[in-house]
Amino acid sequence: MIVILKPDHNEKQLESLVEWLNAKGIEVYPSTGTMHTVLGLIGDTSVIDVSLIMALDIVEDVKRIQEPYKNVNRKFHPLDTVVEISEGVKIGGGNLTLIAGPCSVESEEQICEVAQRVKESGATIMRGGAFKPRTSPYAFQGLRDEGIRLLLKAREITGLPIVTEIMDADQLPLFDEVDMIQVGARNMQNFELLKRLGAIDKPILLKRGLCATYEELLMSAEYIMAGGNNRIVLCERGIRTYETYTRNTLDIAAIPVLKTLTHLPVIVDPSHATGRSALVAPLSLASVAAGADGLIIEVHNDPTHALCDGAQSLTPQAFDELAKTLFEMEQFLHSRKANK
Amino acid sequence: MIVILKPDHNEKQLESLVEWLNAKGIEVYPSTGTMHTVLGLIGDTSVIDVSLIMALDIVEDVKRIQEPYKNVNRKFHPLDTVVEISEGVKIGGGNLTLIAGPCSVESEEQICEVAQRVKESGATIMRGGAFKPRTSPYAFQGLRDEGIRLLLKAREITGLPIVTEIMDADQLPLFDEVDMIQVGARNMQNFELLKRLGAIDKPILLKRGLCATYEELLMSAEYIMAGGNNRIVLCERGIRTYETYTRNTLDIAAIPVLKTLTHLPVIVDPSHATGRSALVAPLSLASVAAGADGLIIEVHNDPTHALCDGAQSLTPQAFDELAKTLFEMEQFLHSRKANK
Amino acid sequence: MIVILKPDHNEKQLESLVEWLNAKGIEVYPSTGTMHTVLGLIGDTSVIDVSLIMALDIVEDVKRIQEPYKNVNRKFHPLDTVVEISEGVKIGGGNLTLIAGPCSVESEEQICEVAQRVKESGATIMRGGAFKPRTSPYAFQGLRDEGIRLLLKAREITGLPIVTEIMDADQLPLFDEVDMIQVGARNMQNFELLKRLGAIDKPILLKRGLCATYEELLMSAEYIMAGGNNRIVLCERGIRTYETYTRNTLDIAAIPVLKTLTHLPVIVDPSHATGRSALVAPLSLASVAAGADGLIIEVHNDPTHALCDGAQSLTPQAFDELAKTLFEMEQFLHSRKANK
Amino acid sequence: MIVILKPDHNEKQLESLVEWLNAKGIEVYPSTGTMHTVLGLIGDTSVIDVSLIMALDIVEDVKRIQEPYKNVNRKFHPLDTVVEISEGVKIGGGNLTLIAGPCSVESEEQICEVAQRVKESGATIMRGGAFKPRTSPYAFQGLRDEGIRLLLKAREITGLPIVTEIMDADQLPLFDEVDMIQVGARNMQNFELLKRLGAIDKPILLKRGLCATYEELLMSAEYIMAGGNNRIVLCERGIRTYETYTRNTLDIAAIPVLKTLTHLPVIVDPSHATGRSALVAPLSLASVAAGADGLIIEVHNDPTHALCDGAQSLTPQAFDELAKTLFEMEQFLHSRKANK
Repeated sequence: MIVILKPDHNEKQLESLVEWLNAKGIEVYPSTGTMHTVLGLIGDTSVIDVSLIMALDIVEDVKRIQEPYKNVNRKFHPLDTVVEISEGVKIGGGNLTLIAGPCSVESEEQICEVAQRVKESGATIMRGGAFKPRTSPYAFQGLRDEGIRLLLKAREITGLPIVTEIMDADQLPLFDEVDMIQVGARNMQNFELLKRLGAIDKPILLKRGLCATYEELLMSAEYIMAGGNNRIVLCERGIRTYETYTRNTLDIAAIPVLKTLTHLPVIVDPSHATGRSALVAPLSLASVAAGADGLIIEVHNDPTHALCDGAQSLTPQAFDELAKTLFEMEQFLHSRKANK
Repeated sequence: MIVILKPDHNEKQLESLVEWLNAKGIEVYPSTGTMHTVLGLIGDTSVIDVSLIMALDIVEDVKRIQEPYKNVNRKFHPLDTVVEISEGVKIGGGNLTLIAGPCSVESEEQICEVAQRVKESGATIMRGGAFKPRTSPYAFQGLRDEGIRLLLKAREITGLPIVTEIMDADQLPLFDEVDMIQVGARNMQNFELLKRLGAIDKPILLKRGLCATYEELLMSAEYIMAGGNNRIVLCERGIRTYETYTRNTLDIAAIPVLKTLTHLPVIVDPSHATGRSALVAPLSLASVAAGADGLIIEVHNDPTHALCDGAQSLTPQAFDELAKTLFEMEQFLHSRKANK
Repeated sequence: MIVILKPDHNEKQLESLVEWLNAKGIEVYPSTGTMHTVLGLIGDTSVIDVSLIMALDIVEDVKRIQEPYKNVNRKFHPLDTVVEISEGVKIGGGNLTLIAGPCSVESEEQICEVAQRVKESGATIMRGGAFKPRTSPYAFQGLRDEGIRLLLKAREITGLPIVTEIMDADQLPLFDEVDMIQVGARNMQNFELLKRLGAIDKPILLKRGLCATYEELLMSAEYIMAGGNNRIVLCERGIRTYETYTRNTLDIAAIPVLKTLTHLPVIVDPSHATGRSALVAPLSLASVAAGADGLIIEVHNDPTHALCDGAQSLTPQAFDELAKTLFEMEQFLHSRKANK
Repeated sequence: MIVILKPDHNEKQLESLVEWLNAKGIEVYPSTGTMHTVLGLIGDTSVIDVSLIMALDIVEDVKRIQEPYKNVNRKFHPLDTVVEISEGVKIGGGNLTLIAGPCSVESEEQICEVAQRVKESGATIMRGGAFKPRTSPYAFQGLRDEGIRLLLKAREITGLPIVTEIMDADQLPLFDEVDMIQVGARNMQNFELLKRLGAIDKPILLKRGLCATYEELLMSAEYIMAGGNNRIVLCERGIRTYETYTRNTLDIAAIPVLKTLTHLPVIVDPSHATGRSALVAPLSLASVAAGADGLIIEVHNDPTHALCDGAQSLTPQAFDELAKTLFEMEQFLHSRKANK
């Protein structure tokens, strides 16, 4: 970490800062140029909050050199992490995994039918919301525990492992039999929840927050890994920008960037990224082309009657066509690599 | 709500949509122009998720006409809500309330001294973090329950009511004696927590999320009011933009806009809005000039040794000077109104 | 267009608004609900500035229903526009066009060598900056007219048509022999320049502004088409967001969205979108997968010694490999469509 | 400037970089830590484009230490610049200057009446658009040269100096008698125009671009000063964010931040910052409280019939009331400082 001091900084405050840093086990190397004095900080600077130093009266700016994350950092763990969801079902390591299912679980009939259909199309994990984070308190909030029961029922029938969203650490007992727990964008920095998920032995699907930086997403994954759980899959699902035509803006660069910074698998949610079903297919293809390890796609058997944003879903038939193209593209990309 | 259909929409899908809307108690009035057919939706459209309709195949766009919030809407409750924090201490209704204290509670000595000092300067509520949301799992996470104990100790000595942040509904029992509970920016859409806070009878300080719209902030307040708790104070604390010189961008327009849209009081946190202590004074003055009902300001007795972002704090002496100017400006603004 | 009035609007102001709209040839149909009066505006509302109406005292909100652009609107011109750059070289209509070359033209040797190399790899148009928009007045501003001379030299040798950026309408005479004129992101709303380019008969490469919406980009194209020039190619080059790891955020959804809204071809600039050369290949692949009509890629024969941001360039060798994969992917995507 | 190298960087590429830097007169001091090698660059790094270095294969990150602007930098010119617009009319140096007038010049009667009214209220500079940058080619584009003639007429009658916007360097001859030339937000990085304005001896009102950083705004001012013209006034006019309730988000912190970084005066345009006339008064007060040297406010004699966004204007009467309060607040703030 490098600390740039103001030209006319108070020496006593500087001493006090150096002392405080030393107490944290960090060595400080000052160097003085024509305009600025710069402090080089050597040691484990991940314990230091940049904003703390930044806000000091004598400090003009602070620049991190080392990433503040360790366990999730590819520099320390060069090999790809492959997360096993259930026997034989994996995310990461070069294969394309499709997760599909309705936005919300609505009925046994609905979830079982959709699960069956997406399985036939090649999806290996089933998604479905039981607890739904909704902006309005008056909107449908999901079937909750009953929703989880129906998901387990669909798993029983299809054999597909399930992933579903948790909204509060208190709900954890209900997730005992769930195969993979999703942390939604709005909970990406619910640190108490992340700590609790670090203490269990279950795969976590961690979605990027609406305006989270790459570093913040990785720090949230670091919370989980710091607790001992390293079965984490990251999910790019669009960020908030000034453009309002689409619900969010899919940050396609997140895929290669995250895969460079971390060894964790990265998947994409094209359905939430745009909120427009016509865009799901082109963005799915783009994501796979950019190197995504998988996709999580909303599929609904009757979009018009969906209770929640199922309307942004594809029909099972449209998903089937898309899945075919995606697997062929995976083949194409693999063959390209093999030829190199 | 107005739904704009695509030029070549499928009639059967349209029927299906109308049927679904009717089932929700909403009447649909179509009108056909040269280019588009437009549906006017009459009824309680607050139950409808715009993104649902938006994502339908036959729909080109959806425009809300009515706000989706009711209880917090000034249209239905024209008079200002005044929130009483403790006997004689109020926020809203035309007076300027100063909330002050350190970022984190560190020791009995620290919190009691700061509380005493800010009280002398005119603050009527004391702040201090016991549970700290930190981006890094390796950073100091607050004294937690011990922190709350120390805050109560400081209240005993100074008589100042306290406001402190909750991070998880599970922590509620520890907040029994706390006067006002803060919901941080990262938890603004932690809907399970909001529901729990709607069920208690305690003032809530609800901070705007890092990239929350006015409507989303108001919907989160609606969650709390829908549960029966109407003692809510909103807090503008800066939003995330592309500008990185300041930690966040204080949205000064949020003050007059929110006060138009809702009857709830609106305060400002200039410390977190910028992350630079030199900007706290000018932004505090600006906020009061723009009509804020109060300010929440970080004050620390020894900024250099603060454990967390106390460094963005003012010293008690700087706060004292600022408070004087703020109260004088309040007087000035009141006298202007009286003369009109 | 729909105008939502405030509940307590002044009737005289309303009359005055209706009169003003009628004078513009627009009919006004009011309809009154429980909470709001809504005006339906029928006629050519593209002449009306939404912000004008929005700002009126009696108005709560305004919603456009019809797009404000006509000539570029796919609704009125369903067929794809194909822009011919030089004999046999086209952009649009289902083929993948590669534009490649250095950031800045530096010397005859450099531009001719790069042009030759990218031609061998399959690029059909050569790019190179003669006039360089630089944030700093102290940075290299391009070889200017000499740069254009060198580009024409390279064209002579290779036969590749050239595209290069104009920065001011005054420079137009220097562009007489240039095949395609580029309007940079910072000039997307230089309306005087757009008008001048509307009056000439040369293909225009119009880059999206750093924070331009789709609609604003299309309105800028409309400026050119309104002048009579319909040879326009749109270019997505990344938008400014809060994420700073990459220079900009490539908005991959812009490709399918723009191709739905307009009949004009859409290409992507992956080099400027991220500012990191390692991301050029994955984002190029993603863009083609999402349906881009072409790519404009920086290629440099000696990245380390480049005078301007050539450093974000690929080497000719890396470009050659990438181009191979891109053309194969194009084949793959075509074969998929053929099978449907 | 500090350059952080990738852990496994190629030594030959490093040598090549060092050589290139040396050739630009910059000394390079490497220092090697456990994880990274860091290069300290000493010399005039303002000539170096960060993105160039950033994009190199061997580079992980680049951090600027010194600001890239010199002439506008307060570090080199500690005293406030005061810009004289006409005899006795100044901006900067501790006084509050009000600039007022209609969005567009429409007729002699209109501009003269408004000018007379705002003069009576205490405005000392008159504004009015002759050339109007409009998103749509079909919207009213201003009276152009005739507009300037009318402004000069109004100056003749009232004695108020005038400021009006230029849209292209070609228009300069028409601005010969104009007192102050405005560069609009969309032209903030029209570098050819900036260069031309650097060569004349007239005050320039430089508006911040829609998504320009503080540094970019200052670099654009640097372009003008580098040409020899140091009579520049900066204007904060709102930035583009995800919030759409207001047209832009007024960045109130820009005032104290810019006044710290530069010696140039800073004014605020509250009319364009929000696009809602009801917000002009509170944001004007806030801006003055935050330290603005002046305000530029739209005032119109008949808002309902305005041809362009005059509707966001105040009436002369509302402006008169606001001006009174603003001058009283200026008095109040001055007296506060005097007492310190």
